[in-house]
Amino acid sequence: MASPGLVPTPRTTAQRLPARGSHDRAAIEAILDEALVCHLGFVHEGQPFVIPTIHARVGETLYVHGSAASRMLRALEGGVPACVTVTLVDGLVMARSAFHHSMNYRSVVLLGTLRAVDDADRKLEALRAITEHVAPGRYAQVRPPNAKELLGTRVLELPIVEGSAKVRSGPPGDDPEDLALDCWAGVVPLALRAGAPIPAPDLRPGIGLPRELVDYSR
Amino acid sequence: MASPGLVPTPRTTAQRLPARGSHDRAAIEAILDEALVCHLGFVHEGQPFVIPTIHARVGETLYVHGSAASRMLRALEGGVPACVTVTLVDGLVMARSAFHHSMNYRSVVLLGTLRAVDDADRKLEALRAITEHVAPGRYAQVRPPNAKELLGTRVLELPIVEGSAKVRSGPPGDDPEDLALDCWAGVVPLALRAGAPIPAPDLRPGIGLPRELVDYSR
Repeated sequence: MASPGLVPTPRTTAQRLPARGSHDRAAIEAILDEALVCHLGFVHEGQPFVIPTIHARVGETLYVHGSAASRMLRALEGGVPACVTVTLVDGLVMARSAFHHSMNYRSVVLLGTLRAVDDADRKLEALRAITEHVAPGRYAQVRPPNAKELLGTRVLELPIVEGSAKVRSGPPGDDPEDLALDCWAGVVPLALRAGAPIPAPDLRPGIGLPRELVDYSR
Repeated sequence: MASPGLVPTPRTTAQRLPARGSHDRAAIEAILDEALVCHLGFVHEGQPFVIPTIHARVGETLYVHGSAASRMLRALEGGVPACVTVTLVDGLVMARSAFHHSMNYRSVVLLGTLRAVDDADRKLEALRAITEHVAPGRYAQVRPPNAKELLGTRVLELPIVEGSAKVRSGPPGDDPEDLALDCWAGVVPLALRAGAPIPAPDLRPGIGLPRELVDYSR
């Protein structure tokens, strides 16, 4: 059964170009899952801050983590309003006019209140999800967090309740009178691509590249 | 002569891992210039918002732009506190322990007040810079903004005065007791790569790909 979409609110509803906006949960989840990092916005002493960080989605919850000593996470764990945005850049849209230049992208903006996850089991589950978000299959191969590491890590959760996705795709939308210009127009596709993995200098001989890192892609 | 760095403030000074932080202006400018998009944070009715948008730097000023009808830009042009963050993802850092997994990245966080640029010449200069930021050499080939388009476009500027860069690079930093584990460790480099350009369906025959889009890279 299809999961219901997020309930639109005035602040998550596109005022311009509404065709680019969506509250469809599957669309939102796919973008959250593909994005490697999110940008987390919060207010501290009247000043907005936007911090890049790794996230992971488990069902209808988004998790972020960081050091228990982090100013950012300390400011957030009291339960202040936050915004989590992820952006996938898909291409440059090159038009015949400067005005119609654009970007192809898929983005999600989530609004809500981040709260600290204190329960040890849920915290461990979130950390597992964050490792698996980056490289599925990785967690089973590595040493899991010990008690001291768990204590030194803060996990915050945001329920995926209020938010929307925005997508632009396809060719440039030039004005009809510009089509005759002697100017190339089209799209340059862009994607995050992996290069050849670089083994750690202290890697023990005889340990091959694990399957999840061969031809890595999002 | 080297440009002086940004003046460190408590809110732009890393409390943890200070070696990753920098106020060096050249380092900050290089990251701003390489990043295709920024994430712009501001507060509206107590709620932080983080919006992806294209930016450009001209000297010690950062410009963003958008539709004059945009709620985001209307909220900001009055001169409210803002944060502009750019993030370049350089690689996955795969450690032997879950805890030491990380990301190689270069990021910049700028704090300040965005203000509307109303002067027509400066506005046009900013729009030119934004087009050139994405594809250097492009602006001279396209139809420049006309009066109506200029009127429909809002440009905002942020002086690059308060902010810092943060960089993580190199191999994983595993605990000595984990080095013996039977687990691959190293870095998977990542970069935004261009695919083959896709001409617009209505591109006039005989117009070749311009030089700035051949083997496009940041």
